[in-house]
Amino acid sequence: MSKMRIAVVAPSCPLKRDAAEAVEAIVAERGDCELIIHPQCFLSDGHFAGSDDARLAALREVMADPSVDAVWFARGGYGSNRIAEEALADLPDAARGKLYLGYSDEGFLLAGFHKAGLDVAWGPMPQDILRGDHGLSDGEAAVRRALDWLVDGDQSALEPELQPPAMAFNLTVLSNLLGTPLEPDFTGVDLLIEEVSEHLYRIDRTMFHLTASANVRRAARIRLGRVGDILKNDPDFGTDEVAIVEDWCARARIPFGGRADIGHDAGNRVVPFGVRAS
Amino acid sequence: MSKMRIAVVAPSCPLKRDAAEAVEAIVAERGDCELIIHPQCFLSDGHFAGSDDARLAALREVMADPSVDAVWFARGGYGSNRIAEEALADLPDAARGKLYLGYSDEGFLLAGFHKAGLDVAWGPMPQDILRGDHGLSDGEAAVRRALDWLVDGDQSALEPELQPPAMAFNLTVLSNLLGTPLEPDFTGVDLLIEEVSEHLYRIDRTMFHLTASANVRRAARIRLGRVGDILKNDPDFGTDEVAIVEDWCARARIPFGGRADIGHDAGNRVVPFGVRAS
Repeated sequence: MSKMRIAVVAPSCPLKRDAAEAVEAIVAERGDCELIIHPQCFLSDGHFAGSDDARLAALREVMADPSVDAVWFARGGYGSNRIAEEALADLPDAARGKLYLGYSDEGFLLAGFHKAGLDVAWGPMPQDILRGDHGLSDGEAAVRRALDWLVDGDQSALEPELQPPAMAFNLTVLSNLLGTPLEPDFTGVDLLIEEVSEHLYRIDRTMFHLTASANVRRAARIRLGRVGDILKNDPDFGTDEVAIVEDWCARARIPFGGRADIGHDAGNRVVPFGVRAS
Repeated sequence: MSKMRIAVVAPSCPLKRDAAEAVEAIVAERGDCELIIHPQCFLSDGHFAGSDDARLAALREVMADPSVDAVWFARGGYGSNRIAEEALADLPDAARGKLYLGYSDEGFLLAGFHKAGLDVAWGPMPQDILRGDHGLSDGEAAVRRALDWLVDGDQSALEPELQPPAMAFNLTVLSNLLGTPLEPDFTGVDLLIEEVSEHLYRIDRTMFHLTASANVRRAARIRLGRVGDILKNDPDFGTDEVAIVEDWCARARIPFGGRADIGHDAGNRVVPFGVRAS
């Protein structure tokens, strides 16, 4: 059996060279897959990993390449929404039958790609290898978890309480894709959300926006992943992120399913979108 | 002729005592209007000027009071969205035929109230008297501008290039009310937006969300007010707020009408919603 070929592109911000080298070393040590890091990952154009045109061209190139089995988004940041619709135009056949993996800002792509019938999953990305938030080697564990799932379909990489069909999103990204052509159908979905580096008042406001959506109200349940690096609210907000999410779910009559094992951290798990269980 | 009676309530965050006293002094000096500052303005409950129930009760009380000619929102912050829908339930007759004035977070109320047929306007609020951003006495000028418009319908208080019907919103507030029951009809509207204390990448992302809306695409034009206190983008975003708004307007084929004289500052002008010119 030939080795799985995994292409890495950066639809948002540039990949760090040392992250790329560390992930390449892990892949070489495994010996069961091949990593093709697109040179676009290292471009820089203001906030982005190259211009919209450059990021779109690299993304479309790997999507259209029949020798590529999986497309692994290098990292988040911001910018994938700027090219998501065009990435889906005149979808080549080869774009189907491969896996797409990433999270955070890549949620714009996960949403639109899933809506277009592609196989997408939320999960750790190459740049995560630099994370040391749960101990020095945790970033490496996150990357190994993603590879175990991509290459072997390792079930232990999955968020442990998924009730497919499932989806996972950063809360702010999800709020910003509502009403856009990228918005998928949430009917019956186990909808996992997480957040990072926001004030509680913003989380409250975004939950107001999210739970007003008739589409989101058709979700089977909402579960809350980790909310990291909460910015100081002045004055103290008076409640916490769990109470906020529970409150808005109750107002909108969406079942609140408790916590989820995802987040902007090295412990982040894999969530395949839709009914695909592995 | 009896003096105009202006009620002040705080649907979001508490009003500062020294702001209230300074505005009362101006009103006393004018002698042509009466200010009724509701005690709810000084309540404090976590982030908010009292609980949702307390803020809602005060708002509904002044809306239903036939002796009140105008409702002036004390200040922004965050929280009016949490009570906006309930404020509009079983609307009393007395809620009509009075003016509602405010901006920033009060945009949630302006949107929903305008949609319900009430007379609303964007403009300076009592707490603005503490602003010194354009010179020490500018906060006072902002409050005098608001009162000149409320009491005398002074046309010089208006944003100078309005093409009614017009509306004005903080960009983030506007984005967060899309798809909610508060969303008004933007067809043919001169739509003014402004922003404060955001990163350029967030402004770009919010413009993506805003301009994807079919309703927003029916606006006559979008104009950009001031974008204050832009937070440092790392790396440099590579473009500026005018280019960002112009770009997304072009993508969505919404005419970009240039700059507007509104903002989170003492220079902020009045924008009556709808066809009402004064």
